[in-house]
Order: sequence, then structure tokens, then C-alpha cells
Amino acid sequence: MKEKITVIKVGGKIVEEGASLAALLDRFAAIEGRKVLIHGGGRSATRIAEQLGIESKMVDGRRITDGETLKVVTMVYGGLVNKNIVAGLQARGVNALGLTGADCNIIKAHKRPVKSIDYGFVGDVECADGDMLSRLIEQGITPIVAPLTHDGKGNILNTNADTMAAETAKALAPIYDTTLIYCFELPGVMRNQEDADSLITTITCESYKQLLADGTISGGMIPKMENAFNAINNGVSKVIITKADAIEGTNGTHIIA
Amino acid sequence: MKEKITVIKVGGKIVEEGASLAALLDRFAAIEGRKVLIHGGGRSATRIAEQLGIESKMVDGRRITDGETLKVVTMVYGGLVNKNIVAGLQARGVNALGLTGADCNIIKAHKRPVKSIDYGFVGDVECADGDMLSRLIEQGITPIVAPLTHDGKGNILNTNADTMAAETAKALAPIYDTTLIYCFELPGVMRNQEDADSLITTITCESYKQLLADGTISGGMIPKMENAFNAINNGVSKVIITKADAIEGTNGTHIIA
Repeated sequence: MKEKITVIKVGGKIVEEGASLAALLDRFAAIEGRKVLIHGGGRSATRIAEQLGIESKMVDGRRITDGETLKVVTMVYGGLVNKNIVAGLQARGVNALGLTGADCNIIKAHKRPVKSIDYGFVGDVECADGDMLSRLIEQGITPIVAPLTHDGKGNILNTNADTMAAETAKALAPIYDTTLIYCFELPGVMRNQEDADSLITTITCESYKQLLADGTISGGMIPKMENAFNAINNGVSKVIITKADAIEGTNGTHIIA
Repeated sequence: MKEKITVIKVGGKIVEEGASLAALLDRFAAIEGRKVLIHGGGRSATRIAEQLGIESKMVDGRRITDGETLKVVTMVYGGLVNKNIVAGLQARGVNALGLTGADCNIIKAHKRPVKSIDYGFVGDVECADGDMLSRLIEQGITPIVAPLTHDGKGNILNTNADTMAAETAKALAPIYDTTLIYCFELPGVMRNQEDADSLITTITCESYKQLLADGTISGGMIPKMENAFNAINNGVSKVIITKADAIEGTNGTHIIA
């Protein structure tokens, strides 16, 4: 029987504020067994960019990453946000190791081809190295992954954390019984965001089509759902979308293959 | 017989300029066998701090690190400088892994006690974990260490890279036949910096006292020499001070126990 592993993705907002970060780290530290954390950091990047006089250009929630913006996200995601999480987890007895995709070559990507929009130094993930991650994890290490990859030619690439989480979970799935948890600000996918009782507890491939058609799922939730289905259709045992204060539980929306 | 390992410390100037960084990475990649790189990044930190409107205060070449400055060095050393080196080495076939002292708890420190000067969030190294580093290295990984440690209570600490290099080499010395190379802008310790033929090829504990007394060694070279002797007196096989374009060789100044 495979050992269990929990892969958790948390958005920038949670890890960028002192109180919510501390609460998250307490909860993450309490999760038993093997685990991986993948984090965002977009709000800090926007703030630091602004302080440096660099304008943040977003298209459909994705950051246009020119050379100067790449420096900012490399600093903020790989340095400021990542290392504060690592130090905070070490203080809680978790042997955390901060990683970008470049470190140990764990996630390789290529620069997104220019079509209608030039996203700049943004990475489309090619593959995650589950064997390498597993070798680290079996040393008692907990990987903390920043949303940066590399192209193997010396360039760091700004990369969507949801995608990195799905690819990491997929890469670990042949080795571990893998649960992927996407944390965000809501208790899960809601029929009506104003109504706390409208949580959708399971979404199948079929019901997803319906939820798309009736507009229940739209905008930024669509790529998150695509990543969730990508994971569940490629060996990941469980995929759950839930609130950050529920990462240890099984509440939220379960994605079913 | 122990396996050989080479621990190289390079200053900020070398890793912060594109051309000198590329040349360094070529040379570092060409070094055979196990290796560790420890880097600085002070010039970039000063530049980014300036752009963020944060004044850099230095005392005897050490940066006074208040809360805002700590964020800058965490971003710049742990993110910008470190991840660019890691990506550059991956492109050269080296399985690089960027680390601060917090990552895998490899180097723990405590906040420097306030005496005549309050250095702020500056770390005095307590210990480096040679066993943990060795477990990574034996996976084929090359650690790339940024000049940051942690206090085990959740705080990152700005830490002198020369000291981290000496402590890393000392921690590896029981496991490996360890060579420590300090790279800087000169061919080694010089009798006269203007005279390229005045390189001092060996310095012993005895001759060091003489060089201190006659003023040949002064200022910022004194802590570097103290670190060099700390290493050679604690199990490190070879300690060499040399120019960055000579890291593969045995030129430079050899420190003799």
C-alpha cells in the first residue's frame, strides 16, 4: 500500500498577512505524514513592484511578466514569501525546504508562446520530477514550493501556482496515495457566494459541464477547475477545493473523476 | 578514504554582474565531484533598498539590518541572486539547490546581542548541519547557499557569507576531505595590492601575527582571515584565498594550521 501524501496549494492572500499566515502554518504543521505546500504571493509582488515604480499589468488574472517584473516575482515569491514560510515552519518543528522549479530541477517549463497576448517570462509547465521530490520527502523534508519554474536554459519563469500544484500532485501520484487540496477564501465551490449553505460538495465531469453552462462556475474558477480535473484524471486520489481554515479536514468541494 | 568536497565562497560583486556571473558559473560547473557554493549579494541589496527608499547603514562593512532591510536581503539574497545562480547552474548540468540556513535547518543562528552597536536582524552562527547537507549532496545535489540563517523561532537573520562558508566547511569536514576556497577580487593576500608579484602564497598562524602587526593585513581582511583559521583549525583540509577566476586551481594564498 502506498504511503499517503497531502499536497496543499494556498493563495497569496493567506500567506502574505501575518495573522492568517501564522494560523495557516499552525494548521499545516499539524497535518500528519508527508506533505507539500505550494504558495502564491501575487499581492506582495504587486506591492513591491509598485514601490519600485514598476506597473503590474494583469490579463485575466495573469501577470504580464517583463524582465523587471520577473526580478520582482523572483525576489518576492522565491525569497520573501517562501523563506518566511520556511522559517515559520522550522519554528513549528517542520523540516521545511523552500523550492522553485529550478531547485533540483523539480519543475521544468517553457516560456509561453506568444499568441494574441505576450505574457513575457511566464512558464507553461512541462513536467514535475516526482522521483526527485520523493527522494527529498523520504529524508523527512517538507517541500515548500514557490510559483516559479525554469526553462533549463538559465531563465526563471513566473508560473501559475494552481498549475504547479496539479503537476506536483500528478508527479507524486505514482509514488504516493496523493490528496490535492486547493485552498481559497470560500468554503468550496458555491452555487451562490452570498449563501454559505450553497456549497457544492461534489463535482463530477458531467456536473461540471452543467455548472459551466449555467454560469455557476465562471472567470478565474475555470482554470482552477481545469487543474483540479487534470489532477484527478491523472492518478491523484482526491482533489478538494476548500477554505484555508479547513485544510486538515475533508470539507469543501470534492472533484470526482 | 573520505570523498573530496569543495566549498566555494564568492562575493556579491561576482554574482551580481551578468558577465562575471556567467564566467563563474562556467568555472563552478567544471569543478569535478561534490561541491557547495556560498554567495553574497550586498551590492544588489543596497541597490534594491535604495530603489525602495530604504537607507543602507553599514558599520565596518556589516549591514545594520532593521525590519525593512531584512525584507530586502531576504528577497535579494534568497530570491533574486540565489535563484538566478540555481537556474544558471541547472542550464550547465549542475543539479543546484538554493538554500538559506532555514531550509532543512542547515544553519541555525541567534540574533547578535546588542553591545555598542545594534546590528538588528543579524545572525551569529551556532551550527551548520553537515549530516543534512551530506544527505542532500549524496542525492547528487549541489547546495547553493544564500547569506541568510534563521533563529529557529521563525525569524530569518542576515548573516555574513564568509562565516557561513567557514561553518559549512567545518560541518562537512568530519564527512568529507574538505577544501574551502574564498574568492575575491585579488589573486590572494598581497603584500602590496598594487604589485601583482607580491602574493603571499602561505600564511601560518605565526606569520599571520606578523602580517597583522606590520599592517599588511587590516580592515575587512581580518574577519576573513579569522574565518579561514577557524576552518583550518577545525578539520578543514585546505583553505585557500584566491581570485574568482582561479577557483579550480591551487593558486592564491594557502592558510596553514
